[in-house]
Amino acid sequence: MTSTRTCADEGEDGVLHRIMPLLGRRGPVVIGPGDDAAVLDVAGKLVVTTDMLVEDEDFRTDWSTARDVGVKAAAQNLADVAAMGAEPIGLVVALGAPGDTPADWPEGLAEGLDAECARAGVSVVGGDLSAAPRLTVSVTAFGQFAGGRPVLRSGAGPGEVVALAGTLGRAAAGLDLLAAGFGDRAGTHGPVAELIGVQRRPTPCYEAGRAAARAGATAMLDVSDGLVRDAGRIAQASGVRIDLDGPFESDLDAVRPAAEALDASGPAAGADGDRSFDTCVRWVLTGGEDHGLLAVFPDEKSVPEQFRVIGSVVAGDPGVTTGGLQLPVGTASGWDHFGGRFRGGDGA
Amino acid sequence: MTSTRTCADEGEDGVLHRIMPLLGRRGPVVIGPGDDAAVLDVAGKLVVTTDMLVEDEDFRTDWSTARDVGVKAAAQNLADVAAMGAEPIGLVVALGAPGDTPADWPEGLAEGLDAECARAGVSVVGGDLSAAPRLTVSVTAFGQFAGGRPVLRSGAGPGEVVALAGTLGRAAAGLDLLAAGFGDRAGTHGPVAELIGVQRRPTPCYEAGRAAARAGATAMLDVSDGLVRDAGRIAQASGVRIDLDGPFESDLDAVRPAAEALDASGPAAGADGDRSFDTCVRWVLTGGEDHGLLAVFPDEKSVPEQFRVIGSVVAGDPGVTTGGLQLPVGTASGWDHFGGRFRGGDGA
Repeated sequence: MTSTRTCADEGEDGVLHRIMPLLGRRGPVVIGPGDDAAVLDVAGKLVVTTDMLVEDEDFRTDWSTARDVGVKAAAQNLADVAAMGAEPIGLVVALGAPGDTPADWPEGLAEGLDAECARAGVSVVGGDLSAAPRLTVSVTAFGQFAGGRPVLRSGAGPGEVVALAGTLGRAAAGLDLLAAGFGDRAGTHGPVAELIGVQRRPTPCYEAGRAAARAGATAMLDVSDGLVRDAGRIAQASGVRIDLDGPFESDLDAVRPAAEALDASGPAAGADGDRSFDTCVRWVLTGGEDHGLLAVFPDEKSVPEQFRVIGSVVAGDPGVTTGGLQLPVGTASGWDHFGGRFRGGDGA
Repeated sequence: MTSTRTCADEGEDGVLHRIMPLLGRRGPVVIGPGDDAAVLDVAGKLVVTTDMLVEDEDFRTDWSTARDVGVKAAAQNLADVAAMGAEPIGLVVALGAPGDTPADWPEGLAEGLDAECARAGVSVVGGDLSAAPRLTVSVTAFGQFAGGRPVLRSGAGPGEVVALAGTLGRAAAGLDLLAAGFGDRAGTHGPVAELIGVQRRPTPCYEAGRAAARAGATAMLDVSDGLVRDAGRIAQASGVRIDLDGPFESDLDAVRPAAEALDASGPAAGADGDRSFDTCVRWVLTGGEDHGLLAVFPDEKSVPEQFRVIGSVVAGDPGVTTGGLQLPVGTASGWDHFGGRFRGGDGA
């Protein structure tokens, strides 16, 4: 795309004209974009979730294309729908943009939103455009239960098993690679490029959420702020302790190429292996944006195929233990949107 | 409130702790804030709409309190739900805020959102907090049809009548009063203070939307970008011409105190009466934020009590006529979010 026209050049209607043809129509849409509001067919209970992504807080335009941002904005909201055990049915998006934003940025955003919606079998059903000092993408996603029931954070009980559908730490490793300039390097390929790809475009397994609900999951959420912090949320809501099996060998293996690439390229080149191992542990335990689903099941045999068992629920003061560390809830590592990364003590 | 603590001081959880107790629970809420997503009971079809308000684009913190912004953000979204002929059932909000925002700003916002939700019989069912360079409030509102059907913009036909529930131009007059400093003046009271109040806290009549649907309205929207521009949207979608009766005497009378106050106070003091009349006409025809409902009905006798007839639908090229002016759609005056006010020719 070589357009140099801006959103201000196009005006609100002009930008909408570019976006509309890019949006598919899937799922139970009765009235799509273009009126005061959209209309969806809903069977029974509705699930609703919202998330805002802000330029230079949640994404950078030199690290992610508009399409990447669209994929991610859709994925993290649809993952929240899945984490309730629901079937996604659609989403709406509000975009705030500076007037000098190239007019093809909203187009790329729409393509990315539509592509990820397609993966979930749904579509963008409505939206809003505003002027804003920085790019701001606010998505609200919807789902229905289709006979099932909501899976909350609060139902876990002692003796149950903790399982995960998805990966750990890869998006966090990808973020550190981007910060070190690996996103720009010609020849970045293989595992390093894949880890950057997870940061840019996470691929949650939406079907796993419904499978968990059908299998009788007692608690579930998507890992958006880090395994330890999010497990702590289930522990807190359910009044239990969660023992996470360490050391997550396969996850550590998957992110190790990032640590090696960073060690080989940066001022820390030649540092001892332990330091790089610590980095991998930090990514795996506190990196959140892979958007895997963390769920609790009554027993091992009820765990659906998309999940692997990574821990257990025990009676005790609400908290999380992993690799010998005991972390009370509320101080667990992870992301705080105002305090920044690892607010409240980085125990990992 | 004398708190000087900021959002960064409180952290995400601290801010949420302050907000949660302020949110009532009304309407068909199954699961409220606090999990990955909220759950609502929906009967049949769901209506969904979203709108983003950005500091210094859509509101100013020196002109509006946090509570005012909350009322307005809820009102403009719930008005869109009403404009589909639906019954509101709830809303979610994403707030982006700089870290140095006083922590009582989100509290005020929550109070305002809750107060306006209460007027519609619903509540805030979920939300998200993000860091952002400026205050950004993104609301998504929901409604259901309860046996009725969606009223779109596209159903108006020749021979039908155009009617309005609500006021015209008052919010726009209030905005100009705020810009001239009337918001700060001790002793600002009476009609001037009331007009400023409409700008800060519009009061759409949500019940009028359902009444219109029951009465067989063929087209409807809420006047958010100005009467002429929004009537043009119905004209365009329905392929008709809309003749608006002028000159809207009662609306002009209601905003005249603003023109007089501005004339008496500003550099234009002593200007001739015509100039002030032109200002009033501009407010009434192009000022949008009163959020009245503009609807088309088959005939005069089907118009519900909340509405007054202000025009008629005739065959012809899509456009709007008023007071002898003929305005093709697409060039009508009103608000464009990227182009600013009165983009595309101010015909009024």
